[in-house]
Amino acid sequence: MRIAVVNCNTTAEMTSRICVSAASVARPGTVIEGVTPTWGVPAAEGFADSFRSAAAVLDAVAGLDVDGIVLAGFGEHGREGVRQLVEIPVVDITEAAVMFACLLGMDYGVVTSQPTAIGPIRQSLRAMGLYERCAGIRATGLPVLAIDTSGEEVVAAFLAQSEALLASGAETIVLGCAGANGIQDTLREKLGIPVVDGVRAAVSLCEDLIYQGLRTSKAGAFRMKPSL
Amino acid sequence: MRIAVVNCNTTAEMTSRICVSAASVARPGTVIEGVTPTWGVPAAEGFADSFRSAAAVLDAVAGLDVDGIVLAGFGEHGREGVRQLVEIPVVDITEAAVMFACLLGMDYGVVTSQPTAIGPIRQSLRAMGLYERCAGIRATGLPVLAIDTSGEEVVAAFLAQSEALLASGAETIVLGCAGANGIQDTLREKLGIPVVDGVRAAVSLCEDLIYQGLRTSKAGAFRMKPSL
Amino acid sequence: MRIAVVNCNTTAEMTSRICVSAASVARPGTVIEGVTPTWGVPAAEGFADSFRSAAAVLDAVAGLDVDGIVLAGFGEHGREGVRQLVEIPVVDITEAAVMFACLLGMDYGVVTSQPTAIGPIRQSLRAMGLYERCAGIRATGLPVLAIDTSGEEVVAAFLAQSEALLASGAETIVLGCAGANGIQDTLREKLGIPVVDGVRAAVSLCEDLIYQGLRTSKAGAFRMKPSL
Amino acid sequence: MRIAVVNCNTTAEMTSRICVSAASVARPGTVIEGVTPTWGVPAAEGFADSFRSAAAVLDAVAGLDVDGIVLAGFGEHGREGVRQLVEIPVVDITEAAVMFACLLGMDYGVVTSQPTAIGPIRQSLRAMGLYERCAGIRATGLPVLAIDTSGEEVVAAFLAQSEALLASGAETIVLGCAGANGIQDTLREKLGIPVVDGVRAAVSLCEDLIYQGLRTSKAGAFRMKPSL
Amino acid sequence: MRIAVVNCNTTAEMTSRICVSAASVARPGTVIEGVTPTWGVPAAEGFADSFRSAAAVLDAVAGLDVDGIVLAGFGEHGREGVRQLVEIPVVDITEAAVMFACLLGMDYGVVTSQPTAIGPIRQSLRAMGLYERCAGIRATGLPVLAIDTSGEEVVAAFLAQSEALLASGAETIVLGCAGANGIQDTLREKLGIPVVDGVRAAVSLCEDLIYQGLRTSKAGAFRMKPSL
Amino acid sequence: MRIAVVNCNTTAEMTSRICVSAASVARPGTVIEGVTPTWGVPAAEGFADSFRSAAAVLDAVAGLDVDGIVLAGFGEHGREGVRQLVEIPVVDITEAAVMFACLLGMDYGVVTSQPTAIGPIRQSLRAMGLYERCAGIRATGLPVLAIDTSGEEVVAAFLAQSEALLASGAETIVLGCAGANGIQDTLREKLGIPVVDGVRAAVSLCEDLIYQGLRTSKAGAFRMKPSL
Repeated sequence: MRIAVVNCNTTAEMTSRICVSAASVARPGTVIEGVTPTWGVPAAEGFADSFRSAAAVLDAVAGLDVDGIVLAGFGEHGREGVRQLVEIPVVDITEAAVMFACLLGMDYGVVTSQPTAIGPIRQSLRAMGLYERCAGIRATGLPVLAIDTSGEEVVAAFLAQSEALLASGAETIVLGCAGANGIQDTLREKLGIPVVDGVRAAVSLCEDLIYQGLRTSKAGAFRMKPSL
Repeated sequence: MRIAVVNCNTTAEMTSRICVSAASVARPGTVIEGVTPTWGVPAAEGFADSFRSAAAVLDAVAGLDVDGIVLAGFGEHGREGVRQLVEIPVVDITEAAVMFACLLGMDYGVVTSQPTAIGPIRQSLRAMGLYERCAGIRATGLPVLAIDTSGEEVVAAFLAQSEALLASGAETIVLGCAGANGIQDTLREKLGIPVVDGVRAAVSLCEDLIYQGLRTSKAGAFRMKPSL
Repeated sequence: MRIAVVNCNTTAEMTSRICVSAASVARPGTVIEGVTPTWGVPAAEGFADSFRSAAAVLDAVAGLDVDGIVLAGFGEHGREGVRQLVEIPVVDITEAAVMFACLLGMDYGVVTSQPTAIGPIRQSLRAMGLYERCAGIRATGLPVLAIDTSGEEVVAAFLAQSEALLASGAETIVLGCAGANGIQDTLREKLGIPVVDGVRAAVSLCEDLIYQGLRTSKAGAFRMKPSL
Repeated sequence: MRIAVVNCNTTAEMTSRICVSAASVARPGTVIEGVTPTWGVPAAEGFADSFRSAAAVLDAVAGLDVDGIVLAGFGEHGREGVRQLVEIPVVDITEAAVMFACLLGMDYGVVTSQPTAIGPIRQSLRAMGLYERCAGIRATGLPVLAIDTSGEEVVAAFLAQSEALLASGAETIVLGCAGANGIQDTLREKLGIPVVDGVRAAVSLCEDLIYQGLRTSKAGAFRMKPSL
Repeated sequence: MRIAVVNCNTTAEMTSRICVSAASVARPGTVIEGVTPTWGVPAAEGFADSFRSAAAVLDAVAGLDVDGIVLAGFGEHGREGVRQLVEIPVVDITEAAVMFACLLGMDYGVVTSQPTAIGPIRQSLRAMGLYERCAGIRATGLPVLAIDTSGEEVVAAFLAQSEALLASGAETIVLGCAGANGIQDTLREKLGIPVVDGVRAAVSLCEDLIYQGLRTSKAGAFRMKPSL
Repeated sequence: MRIAVVNCNTTAEMTSRICVSAASVARPGTVIEGVTPTWGVPAAEGFADSFRSAAAVLDAVAGLDVDGIVLAGFGEHGREGVRQLVEIPVVDITEAAVMFACLLGMDYGVVTSQPTAIGPIRQSLRAMGLYERCAGIRATGLPVLAIDTSGEEVVAAFLAQSEALLASGAETIVLGCAGANGIQDTLREKLGIPVVDGVRAAVSLCEDLIYQGLRTSKAGAFRMKPSL
């Protein structure tokens, strides 16, 4: 089974890190194929970036020979567009992370990178339908590309925002960023509550759908255009 | 890895059928342990049944030595109670089915057994948070225990309600009943859209959570009572 | 006219206290019949307790020869189940208290016992439909069975949480606990705003429905099962 | 105990009929004082009428020496204004009817007079907070002043719209008009489900609040103006 | 083109100030006709005032020979009533201000006069449909008639509440008061974000509708009564 | 004053038609500058098209020397991205049309081109906040590029869907397509209710914001990235 894990930005090093997360939970026999868009933005940190990356991702998935697609941009636009283009399952890490979180606790909180990323995340959650269980979305102020290690500063920033979310009623924390590999374990240990990484959640969900033979519905919004 | 698949009613034959569905998607190495409550209702078909079965299920999960729990009663109450009792992951087939459906199409429809089952299902979906994507819940009029085969009559009844839901905007169909093993493939073929069986969805989700080391949050609503 | 006031827990002493509240507002000629479930939980303080008590209450109401039923567990599950079993009016103190509060002020706040009781209360209010007028639900941290007097400590704890709710926009306070007889007057005096006791509200509402000849609808969700 | 039942229109004959309904459920010792505004509209059948009647009702309640006020205009504006003017309990028949209906069935339907009355009713229900349980609001097309008997034509018109609402999921019917005295019994008998008259519901609720010593909150929106 | 700008209160001096705002944005050729109700309240600061002013405004618009109407009472009731009486366009400054704000930023905040004005404003926004984008409504505590200059005290009071709203997530500020002419520029400069004056917004919107030949729909809620 | 009217697709002939609509309502002195993206899709008819056109529009607006921007793609993504890139006002025809419609009637209906366009329109309205006043979105089945005349067939198709929306409670009709110049007058005449063209509405709103000196907020979601 082959799953394409599509980074939403053009930073290949970040694709590699995402693929490490993806591979860490993949079932035996699953091949993770990292995909980096050939154009777009080096890091998506707000609405303008998000719409550019959505179009770049649509190009990036064309012609892929895989069994499922994971969209690895937290809070980024485009998932419904990709679903219209293909029949294989498409799982967005935003949806996946929030679904996992809703199975583990009543309300969840999201910790993300820059404050400008909050807007698109909120819009993505509202469009999806589990926003009413969101206790808050908070930004660390770190640029996306700085969230590349589990270095002390990064952990401290995520910890501070997570604690603020706990105080607001969050029972689980969702990492609002695709590249934070490893940080979820450190946070979970320090906070004592579940911390969900969307890449891991999405890879598992995508495998599940593939194994069960479930494919994207073509009965409505995702019907292909005749000319496509 | 051991997963308990807990039937919500006392009909052991139905537990067996549910376990067949569960086993059909379980990963290699996963042991499915069917659990039938020792008291409660032979079939849950409305609010009164649903609350009785919730309490019986709470008893049934006590002392289980497993890694995760699947609650196999579609639309039945109790999931939050079980989550309070344990630290392992708990996945309700209602949640799981609807999450899968929301990854495959915009709006989903639910086909269930008796008209009295619609109330609890609607309440379960509203409590969970994806009700706004529900295009409708329709009843076949069949008793739960009659949905034991993929016989022609059962298929015809599910097909008729599914078609009505499609006309109302559903892009996927969710089987609103735990025991309808096999019918999802027949329906999918006839309707040309995804049909989701909650038992299969929940088993996979439960495995995913276990493999990723995610456990139920004890930070809020699911904190255990001191005396428990 | 006979009204059964059904405690949700097995603590008979609490049933007695609830009946004192109930009797204090009953019309002349109304007989209050206290009902204590014969099994269940000594005090309901969270989701697991709530589902157990719901089933125990279903058993407790079987065979009652009364004209109406008051369910005296604040925020506890089960009201829709009882409504399916009988044709007489059934009033839950959660609904009743919130309805009274919404007639007296725009937004209301709820003060309850343990933090784990907040989850079921919130779910009950959302299912009922007046949650959008809830300014907050706060816990005193007191065990249910400790709220048995209007002792200074109990009053102080309720007062502190009520004041926090007022600061958040609550215009009335709802006692989120069935056994707090007497405390509503003390609080009202100290706070200068209405404080609603659900037991009193529910007894009056139940009498109203009985006097007007109104009975539970059997046209939909509360239709009885043929086998019941 | 004295309760003012305030008609929203200037038709004294209608006030009389409303008072008959009110008296039919009043407790022994309750005095019903019918109040007819001295200006305004002969019948409120839409937004413009509704705002005029709201102001006329504010004038009509000034100086009343009563223990509680029932506002007898279904779906009409003004209840929050009256609450600001007084400290005694104020119950609007719209709120009261819908609260009773929500205790008796899951979803309710409203049958009213003219199509132009639907807008204000919908706005009133949305402002109150139980609109999500409304299965529909339908108009008979009858002028308010024609709904003065339980004559065959009126019954037939209400019956037809009630049946349409039942088919849409209503489990109870709310009379969306203050003057339909008597029709609720005929409808209930023919439909086999509860039919709620707001005047009756409001009088009982108002009595309940008075007996329990509950008064309108002055902590927020209903605080009086210094100059009033 | 003639536009009536209808003050909601009887203070002619305030009408004059509102007309200055209106004229400052009117297109060449637009005649602004200030209208002061001949009865009602000197200043609308809460629910009771709001309903009185609604009726007085209905009287005030009768017989106007204009091409469009601006209702210049922020958060006051009555707009739907005026729409039922006429066929020309009717624009409420509450709607207009919030629409402008929603074009300029994600969430908006409202700064108003007295705390009692918050209730009607919230109800107006909920009825209109953009309340979910409201980050808060805060009162300066100033009486409406004191907000007649851009004096230091008034500016300081508006500034303090605006900053609190910014901290709560507001990206634009809406002046919740018709008479605050001039203050929007001072605030915008000090805050660095858009500040919207509803009178200006409504005059422009009303002109737009008139120029495009758009008139109030008579297909539903705003259909005139036969007798009007 | 210069306003860029940005087509969302690459069909220059459609840009021309849109500019005719725009010019027909522009104030004297306003220069309408039609902008056609240099890449993207010839016609946007679904989610994939919509995300591509969003990115192409972001490129198309870079370097524009204008005072305001109108985004002329009905229901298309991207408006929040453009708002992040500039400080001048940005008005999306979807928002503008719906705002106008909400000033003219209670509920509106949308008539669009292909069924696949319904999904993005619904998502756009939900994100904006006036979806609860939407009585329905219906597709004519006509390709976007076929809606280039007010030919009989096109009118008949729009008329049929409009009538269905009226029957569902719409009081105004919104043209869910940028290129339908002229059809709004024909429809209005035949239906007797307001028909809103988003291009016209947006041009007027954009002029209004410019004249009033209002600019896009940079306080939150639309703050520019440092690197932009």
